[in-house]
Amino acid sequence: MIQDRIKGENLRKKLATAEDASHLIKDGMIIGTSGFTPSGYPKEVPLALAKRVEESNENLSITLITGASVGDELDGELSKRNIIKKRLPYQTNNYCRDSINNGYIDFVDLHLSHLPQYINCGFLGKIDLAIVEAIEISEEGYIVPSTSVGITPAIVRQAEKIIVEINTSQPMDLIGIHDIYEVKNPPYREPIPIIKASDRIGHKYIPIDVNKVEAIVVTDKKDNVRPFNPINENHIKMANYLIEFLKHEIKVGRLPKKLFPLQAGVGSVANAVLQGFKNSNFENLDFYTEVIQDSILDLIDVGKVNIVSGTSVTLSPEGLEKFYKNLKLYNEKIILRPQEISNNPEVIRRLGVIALNTAVEVDIFGNVNSTHILGRNMVNGIGGSGDFARNSYLSVFFTESTAKNGKISTVVPFASHVDHTEHDVDVIITEEGIADLRGLSPKERALSIINNCSNSYFRPLLMDYYKTATKAYKSHTPHLLKEAFYFHEILDKHGSMRIN
Amino acid sequence: MIQDRIKGENLRKKLATAEDASHLIKDGMIIGTSGFTPSGYPKEVPLALAKRVEESNENLSITLITGASVGDELDGELSKRNIIKKRLPYQTNNYCRDSINNGYIDFVDLHLSHLPQYINCGFLGKIDLAIVEAIEISEEGYIVPSTSVGITPAIVRQAEKIIVEINTSQPMDLIGIHDIYEVKNPPYREPIPIIKASDRIGHKYIPIDVNKVEAIVVTDKKDNVRPFNPINENHIKMANYLIEFLKHEIKVGRLPKKLFPLQAGVGSVANAVLQGFKNSNFENLDFYTEVIQDSILDLIDVGKVNIVSGTSVTLSPEGLEKFYKNLKLYNEKIILRPQEISNNPEVIRRLGVIALNTAVEVDIFGNVNSTHILGRNMVNGIGGSGDFARNSYLSVFFTESTAKNGKISTVVPFASHVDHTEHDVDVIITEEGIADLRGLSPKERALSIINNCSNSYFRPLLMDYYKTATKAYKSHTPHLLKEAFYFHEILDKHGSMRIN
Repeated sequence: MIQDRIKGENLRKKLATAEDASHLIKDGMIIGTSGFTPSGYPKEVPLALAKRVEESNENLSITLITGASVGDELDGELSKRNIIKKRLPYQTNNYCRDSINNGYIDFVDLHLSHLPQYINCGFLGKIDLAIVEAIEISEEGYIVPSTSVGITPAIVRQAEKIIVEINTSQPMDLIGIHDIYEVKNPPYREPIPIIKASDRIGHKYIPIDVNKVEAIVVTDKKDNVRPFNPINENHIKMANYLIEFLKHEIKVGRLPKKLFPLQAGVGSVANAVLQGFKNSNFENLDFYTEVIQDSILDLIDVGKVNIVSGTSVTLSPEGLEKFYKNLKLYNEKIILRPQEISNNPEVIRRLGVIALNTAVEVDIFGNVNSTHILGRNMVNGIGGSGDFARNSYLSVFFTESTAKNGKISTVVPFASHVDHTEHDVDVIITEEGIADLRGLSPKERALSIINNCSNSYFRPLLMDYYKTATKAYKSHTPHLLKEAFYFHEILDKHGSMRIN
Repeated sequence: MIQDRIKGENLRKKLATAEDASHLIKDGMIIGTSGFTPSGYPKEVPLALAKRVEESNENLSITLITGASVGDELDGELSKRNIIKKRLPYQTNNYCRDSINNGYIDFVDLHLSHLPQYINCGFLGKIDLAIVEAIEISEEGYIVPSTSVGITPAIVRQAEKIIVEINTSQPMDLIGIHDIYEVKNPPYREPIPIIKASDRIGHKYIPIDVNKVEAIVVTDKKDNVRPFNPINENHIKMANYLIEFLKHEIKVGRLPKKLFPLQAGVGSVANAVLQGFKNSNFENLDFYTEVIQDSILDLIDVGKVNIVSGTSVTLSPEGLEKFYKNLKLYNEKIILRPQEISNNPEVIRRLGVIALNTAVEVDIFGNVNSTHILGRNMVNGIGGSGDFARNSYLSVFFTESTAKNGKISTVVPFASHVDHTEHDVDVIITEEGIADLRGLSPKERALSIINNCSNSYFRPLLMDYYKTATKAYKSHTPHLLKEAFYFHEILDKHGSMRIN
C-alpha cells in the first residue's frame, strides 16, 4: 500500500515519525508549507511540533509562509504556543487572528499572486524548510499534491530541506486533477499559454529534488474543513441582483450569453451568491477562480458547469464527502493550478474574468475594505481579491448592508482601511440593491451607493454626511475629514453605529 | 506636399476648415480624442469649437475622453467655456482642474490601461465622434499617429464619425516609431507576444474605416508642451537613494546587472530621478513605460539606453526641438504603442518592470495617495501609476518629505485618499531616506517609514501618533481614527501642518 504512495526504496528509508521530523524545525527558521484555505496543508508535523514545544517549554519561533489559510493543526496549534513570530500571506484561524491583533504575530498581508514571485526572487529571504502534503512521492523526482496546489511548487524549489507528509486520507484518484506550470523569473518569462479556462498547460505532478527530502511522514488526518454559514434571505437577494445585472449586460451586448469565466471569493457570502446560478438560465459556465467551494460542486451536479480552474478545493465536511465519492466526475471538471497561475493578472485580464468578492465595508465613493475592523484589527487578509478585482473585466463586491444584527453599517463615509480603491470597483451589491459605478464620477458614485446599497436606517445619516460635505467645500470628492470616521467612532464608543 | 500626407483624391475632398468641422460636434455627444500628456492631441478643431461657442453663446456640453492629459487648446479652452460636462480619464490643465474641483465637470479617474477595454466593450456608451491628430492618412485605410498613440486605435474603431487633424508640424520621419497591436475583446484574446521591451509586434499605422472620416483639417500647431521644474537638491538625493538601492538588489541577486525594464511616471520628480542614471554605472537600460520625458532622451544621448517602449513622447519645449532634430536616432530607440499595450498588466508582470511613481502623500503604513489634496480636491488623476505599481516586480514611490515650503508633511498618519494600497507599495523614497517595505508587517512598516522617510520637524509628531495608537489598542494596524486626519485638519484650518 505505502509502496504505491512512496515510490522507491531510498525514499522509504526516509520514513519518520512526526515527532522526529519536527526536530528539523529550529528556532528562527523561515518555513513554507503547502495548504490553501484550508486544504492540503501538513497536519502531523505541526501537531508534533506543538506537542514538543508544549512539553519542552523551549523557545522556538518561526516565520510561517503558506499559500493561504491552513487548518487549526498548523495556525491554531502553533499560535497557541507562540511558535509563529511572523506570518504571511493570509489566515482565517481564531487563535492566529487574536495573536495578530494582540501584537504577538507580525502579519504581512500580501496579494496571493505576488507571494510565489516574492519567494522565487528572494524577497522574503531563504526558505529553510518546506513542509508539504502529498498523495504520492517518487524517486523519479516528483510529488503529487492533494486538495490544493498553492505555493508548493515554489517552496519545494526554493527550500533548503523538505518534509513530505503523505496523506492517505487523500485518494489516489486526485491524480490528474492538477496542472503544474511554473512561471520563470524575469527576464526569462514567456506568455502563459492559457486562452480558455479549460486549457491544461503543465504536468500532473510537482518536480522535486528528492535529495532535499529529509523526512517522509505518513498520516490519514483529513483536511480540517469548516461548514459554511447557512444561506439567508439577504444572500438570495444579492444573488438575484447579480443574476439580473448579468442578464442586462448580455442584453446590451457587454457580455456573451455564456458569460466570461467567473471568480468567487472565499467564504459563505460568495458560496451563497454562486448558489443563485443554480436556478438561473445560465449554462456551460466557466470558472477561473481561486477556491472551489460547495456551491461550485452543486453547479457541476446540475450540469451547469463546463470547467472549473482554481488552486484549491475548499469544501464543507459534507461537501468533502461528496467530492471524494464522485471524484472521477469532478476530476474531469476541475483543474488545480499553482496560485501564481490561478491568480495571475495576465490570465485574469486575458480571459475577461468576472470577479465576485466580499467586502467588510465600502465607502460612499466605492473604496472597499476587505481586511480590517475599525481600521486596526485584521480579519483574514486580502487573499486573492486584489489579484482578481484589479485585473478583471468586471469587479463586483458583495456585502450585506449591515453587520452584527444591524448595529454596524457596512456602507460608511470613509473606509477605515482601503484594500481596493475606487479605481478597482465596478459594481457594489447589498441586499438593498446594486450600484453600477462604471463611468461615474465620485459624486455620482456616492449618490448611487447611498441610494441603492445602504441600509434604510443609516441612509439618511450617510446622505447627511454627503450633503454637508458638498455644502462645506466645492470639491471633486466631497469629504469632511473631521467627521469622516464618525460612524466608526460611535461604534468604538457604544459597540454600535446606531446612536438612538 | 499635402498629397504626401492625405493620400487619395477622395480623402482630399474631405478637407475642411476647423470651423466647419467643429459643427460636427453637437450637444450631449461623447467625444474621444487622440492625445497623451500632452502630445499628439487635436488642436485646431477644439479651438474652433471654443471660438464658435464663445460667439454663439449656445449651450453645448460634451463628455470628453482622451488617452491621458491633453493641451490647453482642448482641456483649457473647452473648460473655460463650460463645454466639458464629463471628463475622463486624466488631466493636468489648470482650468480643467478648477472646473472639476468647483463641481462643473464630473471627472472619472480611471486606470489608463482600463480605458481602451471600457471603450471597446461599451462600458462608456457609444463614442459619437473621434477627433484624432495624424501625420498621414491613406485611402487604403490607415492613419499614422504623431507623438502619442494612447487610445486612438480604440476610438477610431468605435466612433461613429471621425475628424482627422493632419498636423504638418509633426515630421514624416515619425513613421516607423509606432507599433500598433490591438488586443481583441474576450473571449478571443490571445497572449500579447512581447517578451522583451524591444519586441515590435504590430503595424506602423492604425487601421481606420475611411468612410467614417467626415472631415480632414490641416494644421501646423505644435504640441503645447510644458517645461519641467528645475532639478533640486532633494531630487538628486532621491535619485541617489534609488541608485544605491538598485545596486544593493543586484549585489544580493534580486536584480540582474542591467536591471529589468524601468517605468517612470509623469512629471518633474520622475524626470529628475531618471537623470540620476546618467552618472551611474548602469548600461544598456530598457524602459517599458508610458511617457517618454526629457531625461530619457538625455540617457539615449549618453548611450545608456537599449530601448524605450512607451505610448507618448512628452517633452519640454527644448526637448521637443532636440527630438525633432535627431529624430532618426531616436526613432531607432523608441517604440510608441497603444496605451492598452504600454500599460498592460500582462506585459508589465511578465517583464518584471521596476515601477517608479510619484506620491502626493503616503501614510505611515505605506498607503499612497497620488490624486487628492485634503481628500477632496483632484490634482491630475491616477494615470498609469496603478497599472504599473500593481503588476510590477518592484513598486517604488517618490515624494519629497514636505510640500509647500515645508508647511505640509507628505508623510501622514492616514492617507486622505488611497490610490495604491499597502499591498502595492514596496519601497518609499524621500530626500530623507528610503523605506524598503517588502515582507514587513504594518508596525514594522510604520517604524521604517517614520524613521527613514519623514521630515525631521514632523517625525516626532508622527511617532507620537503611532505610539499613542499602539498604547491605546492592541491591534494589527495601530490607528486612532479620531485623530487619523489630525494633520489634515490643522492644514485645513491654518494653511499649514506646522502648528507653532
